[in-house]
Amino acid sequence: MRKTANTAVPVHPLLSERWSPRGFDLHHQVSDGDVTALLEAARWAASAGNSQPWRFVVTRRGERAHGQLFDALHPGNQEWAGAAGALILVAAEIAGADGTPRPWALYDTGQAVASLTTQAQAHGLATHQIGGFDSAAVRDAFGLDDTLTPVVVVAVGRADPDAVLPERLAGRETAPRTRRPVSDLLLTPVEASELVAA
Amino acid sequence: MRKTANTAVPVHPLLSERWSPRGFDLHHQVSDGDVTALLEAARWAASAGNSQPWRFVVTRRGERAHGQLFDALHPGNQEWAGAAGALILVAAEIAGADGTPRPWALYDTGQAVASLTTQAQAHGLATHQIGGFDSAAVRDAFGLDDTLTPVVVVAVGRADPDAVLPERLAGRETAPRTRRPVSDLLLTPVEASELVAA
Repeated sequence: MRKTANTAVPVHPLLSERWSPRGFDLHHQVSDGDVTALLEAARWAASAGNSQPWRFVVTRRGERAHGQLFDALHPGNQEWAGAAGALILVAAEIAGADGTPRPWALYDTGQAVASLTTQAQAHGLATHQIGGFDSAAVRDAFGLDDTLTPVVVVAVGRADPDAVLPERLAGRETAPRTRRPVSDLLLTPVEASELVAA
Repeated sequence: MRKTANTAVPVHPLLSERWSPRGFDLHHQVSDGDVTALLEAARWAASAGNSQPWRFVVTRRGERAHGQLFDALHPGNQEWAGAAGALILVAAEIAGADGTPRPWALYDTGQAVASLTTQAQAHGLATHQIGGFDSAAVRDAFGLDDTLTPVVVVAVGRADPDAVLPERLAGRETAPRTRRPVSDLLLTPVEASELVAA
């Protein structure tokens, strides 16, 4: 199902076609090649001083670690996320080995996951990022020390518009995507020019 | 000049060809259409609860705001960033209007800028993100309140491999890009599979 972003000027399809479904194909497996490409896309993102603070736990349906990650999701997310072929825990290394804080660690980790998401789109895979999970349980399950902060769990798989979802969630699959207008994002107006009108 | 990422499996060229030059074409102007597309790409990024915490000040060479932003850059960045057609201040809204913290604000802002960067690549534009700037000066110049945190300044323009740079910086333009191996990014090994070898 397409839910193309409504943009004033054309945006690359890898970006404009991305959205976050909850309906995933329970029979689709994310291949080793796909996982490698997603990690490579994340790996080559930009970061402050090339610090590369992004860290991952890649789990696929049927694996023990997948079960551990799934169990840590908030109940509302367990209603749908288990159907995705992979759940990827994303953590940010917020301090170096010597304890030096990395002020851009969360920001840069966001960049890496956006690249991962773009690469997933190129493979015909959908992603849905989940912030609702038990952070302490995840730290415990995967042995994260204080230099690491769990940020999101990314569900990756093949979208399935026919997936059966609770009624409350099913409506959100077909609802239009919305965003604030560009003007809301600008702290000061763009000077001496008129942007292409929406 | 191409500095393609060295990946174990193919990654989409919009990602693999991205790097952060310091040599920009001093005569190239970033068009209104380009700016609109970059902002649209950022606008449609994913965010926690669709909170869309990313904010921008878009300035182009010759504008007063561009001068203000340029003046706030650390001296080492002033050696090259003024040649880019645009300098974009990126800020994150780290708290809602009612003061509620947004734990994913920095992360999501990173996602938006990665999308902006991918869109820039699609337009043949290069980006170089700058963390070295005087945050207080930027707050003052653009009236950022406490709900907003300045994160980076993005230089956007047409890369120019023949741009004249101080010798110290010129060598970095041609140096190979480097990243940690994928294995360093994995908190636990990928289970029950062998990722495609590098």
